[in-house]
Amino acid sequence: MDILKETIDSIKPLFSDCVKEAWERIDDLTKPIGSLGGLEDIAAKLSGITGKINNNIQKKNIIIMCSDNGVVEEGVSACPQNITAIVTNNFTKNITGVCKLAKHANSEITVVDIGVNADFNNKNIINKKIAYGTKNMAIGAAMTKEEVIKAIEVGIETVSKLTLSGYDLLGTGEMGIGNTTTSAAVVSVLSGINSDLIVGKGSGLTEKQYENKKNVVKRAINVNSPDKNDVIDVLSKVGGLDIAALCGCFLGAASCRVPIVIDGFISSCAALCAYRINPLSKEYMFPSHLSAEPGAIYIMQELSLSPMLNLNMRLGEGSGCALAFNVIEAALYTINNMATFKEAEIIKDCYVDIR
Amino acid sequence: MDILKETIDSIKPLFSDCVKEAWERIDDLTKPIGSLGGLEDIAAKLSGITGKINNNIQKKNIIIMCSDNGVVEEGVSACPQNITAIVTNNFTKNITGVCKLAKHANSEITVVDIGVNADFNNKNIINKKIAYGTKNMAIGAAMTKEEVIKAIEVGIETVSKLTLSGYDLLGTGEMGIGNTTTSAAVVSVLSGINSDLIVGKGSGLTEKQYENKKNVVKRAINVNSPDKNDVIDVLSKVGGLDIAALCGCFLGAASCRVPIVIDGFISSCAALCAYRINPLSKEYMFPSHLSAEPGAIYIMQELSLSPMLNLNMRLGEGSGCALAFNVIEAALYTINNMATFKEAEIIKDCYVDIR
Repeated sequence: MDILKETIDSIKPLFSDCVKEAWERIDDLTKPIGSLGGLEDIAAKLSGITGKINNNIQKKNIIIMCSDNGVVEEGVSACPQNITAIVTNNFTKNITGVCKLAKHANSEITVVDIGVNADFNNKNIINKKIAYGTKNMAIGAAMTKEEVIKAIEVGIETVSKLTLSGYDLLGTGEMGIGNTTTSAAVVSVLSGINSDLIVGKGSGLTEKQYENKKNVVKRAINVNSPDKNDVIDVLSKVGGLDIAALCGCFLGAASCRVPIVIDGFISSCAALCAYRINPLSKEYMFPSHLSAEPGAIYIMQELSLSPMLNLNMRLGEGSGCALAFNVIEAALYTINNMATFKEAEIIKDCYVDIR
Repeated sequence: MDILKETIDSIKPLFSDCVKEAWERIDDLTKPIGSLGGLEDIAAKLSGITGKINNNIQKKNIIIMCSDNGVVEEGVSACPQNITAIVTNNFTKNITGVCKLAKHANSEITVVDIGVNADFNNKNIINKKIAYGTKNMAIGAAMTKEEVIKAIEVGIETVSKLTLSGYDLLGTGEMGIGNTTTSAAVVSVLSGINSDLIVGKGSGLTEKQYENKKNVVKRAINVNSPDKNDVIDVLSKVGGLDIAALCGCFLGAASCRVPIVIDGFISSCAALCAYRINPLSKEYMFPSHLSAEPGAIYIMQELSLSPMLNLNMRLGEGSGCALAFNVIEAALYTINNMATFKEAEIIKDCYVDIR
C-alpha cells in the first residue's frame, strides 16, 4: 500500500458551495461588507473545509516533529546538537515556550521523535525514529529518498490518528538544531531565489558564523544538485526528517479535511513542499505569524497566504500556532454569533462593497 | 480644578528598573534570546507600567466612544447618520462585531454617548453627551475648544473609574458615521502628510463618493486653518467628539498606569493626539492591528509601534482590541511560566544575542 500516493490522490478542493453559502451569511451580518477582513476569510475557508456553515473547534493539537541534522558538523548553529534531545524531552516536562502558549490556548501537543540523535525512555515522546539524525548535506545527500517518504508518511499517519481522535484544528512545530539551515537550502532550491537572501541567523549567530552558514548552504546545494521539480529529491539531498514529516502533516490534513496552521520558517518550508506536491493542500493551511527568518516571506508570497500575526518571533516549536488558534476561534465565534442586518434593524443597502 | 492639565502633568515614564529586571528574567528563559519577539516586548513593557515583574490581567474592558459628525452633510459616508444611534444601541444588545469578539476574549465593554445625534433611554449607555453631534467642518469649526476639553476629560474620567473598579487592561473603540473623515483630517494636519494619502474608503464608498470625501477633507482643512502644533485647536476645527474622548482615554490610562490597546484608524488618530499632547503617554499604549484604512500606517510609524495583528480589518468598534487582549495575556502567561535555562538543563551560553 502506497500511503503517500494514496494521500496525494485523495486531496480534494474546498466545498465551493459551502464557501459561497458562508460568504452570503457573512455579508448579511451587521457590519460594513468585508470589514472583518481576515476573520471573514478564516470563517469562509473553514466552511469550505468542513462543509458546515457554522463551525466550532472542539480539540486542538500542535504536532512537534523533532530530529537532528548532520550539517551541524559545519558549525551552522551556535548550539550543540544535544540541545535537540534536551528540548524534545523538555516538551514533555511542559516547560518550553510552546508548552505555555499551547496551555494558554487550551491546546494539546504531540511530540514525535522522527530522527533525534538520542534514545528516549519517555512514553510522552512518540518513537517514529527513522535515523539518528541525517547525514551532513554539505558533503553529500542528507538521506535517501526512501527515508524522506517514510518521514512524510509518519506525518500523514500522525494527522490521521489525531483526526480520528476528534482533533479538528492542528498546528505544526519542530525542534532540531540546524533546521533553519536545511530549510533555507530547501526553500532556495524550490524557489530559485539566491540562498543568501533566504539564510537567516536562526537561534542566534555572530556575523562570522552567519557568513559560514550562508557558505554551507551554497555548498550543500552545489554538491547535491537537487532537482527543483522533484520535492522528494530536494528533501533527500538538502532537507531534514522534521521538514519531511511536517510536509506529511500538511498533506495528511488536506486529505483528512482538517484545518492546519503553519508556524514559522521550518514549518512554512514544509508547507511549501506539500504545496509543490499537491497545490490543493494549500486550501487547508492557515498561516499564523511572519517569522523573523528572512526566507519566510518568500514562502508566504508563493502560497499567497497573509500571516495573521506579526510579532517578529523566531522560536519555532509551533509557538505561533497557539496564537493563531485563538484568532481562528475568535473569528468563528464572532461570525457564528453576530446579528444579521435585519436583526440589527439596519438597512444593508447603505454599505458599498469595496473588497 | 483643571482635570486635563493635572492629568497631563501626572504622566510619568515607565519604571525603568522594572523593565531592566523583566528583561533579565526574560533573557534567562529557555529559548534563543529574543526569539519570542513581540511577546517579550509586551511582557517587559507591562512590567514598566505596573512595577511588577510577573503580571496577570484580572479584568478587561473596551471603551466605545460614540458620537456624530456634522460633516456627513457633505456625503462623506454612504450610511445615513442614524446608523450611529442604531449601532450605539446595538452594542447594548450584544449583537455587533465587538460584542462577540469581546465575549470571546472574556472582556466587558463600556458604551459612552459622547455626542450622538439622538436621545437614548438605555441604562447601559453612559450619557456624557456634549452635543447632538459636531458642526459641519467643511464650512467652519466642528466644535469649540471647550467642547474638545470636556470630551477629553470624559475620556480621562471613564478610564479613571474603570481603573478604580479593578480593570487592568483597557481597549479603545468608537462608533460614529463620518469619523474616518474627521480622523483623516486630524492625521493629515498633525502629520503634514497630504490628505489624499490619508483618506480611505471607510465603511465603503464608490469611487465618486471617495473623490468627494477627499475634496471635503481638503476643504475642511483649508477653511479652518488648524494650528498643527495645538492638538486642541486641530480637534476643535476638524476633529470629532469620539476622537477627543478617546484621546482622553489614552492620557487617562497613562496617568493611571494602566495598559491601553489601540484599535483601528480612529483610535490610532486619538492615540496620536494623546502622544502629541504628552509623548510619555505612548509608553502605556499597545497597538492591536494595522487597519485597512491607508492613514493607519503613518500613525504607527510616528508612534514607533508595530501592530501585532494584520487582518485587514476596518470595522472599528474596538474590534481589534479584543484580539490583542489574547496576545497580551498569552505573552504574560508564557513569560511568567516558562522554565529558566537552569531549570531546563540547558547552557545559556550557546545562544548568541542577535537583537
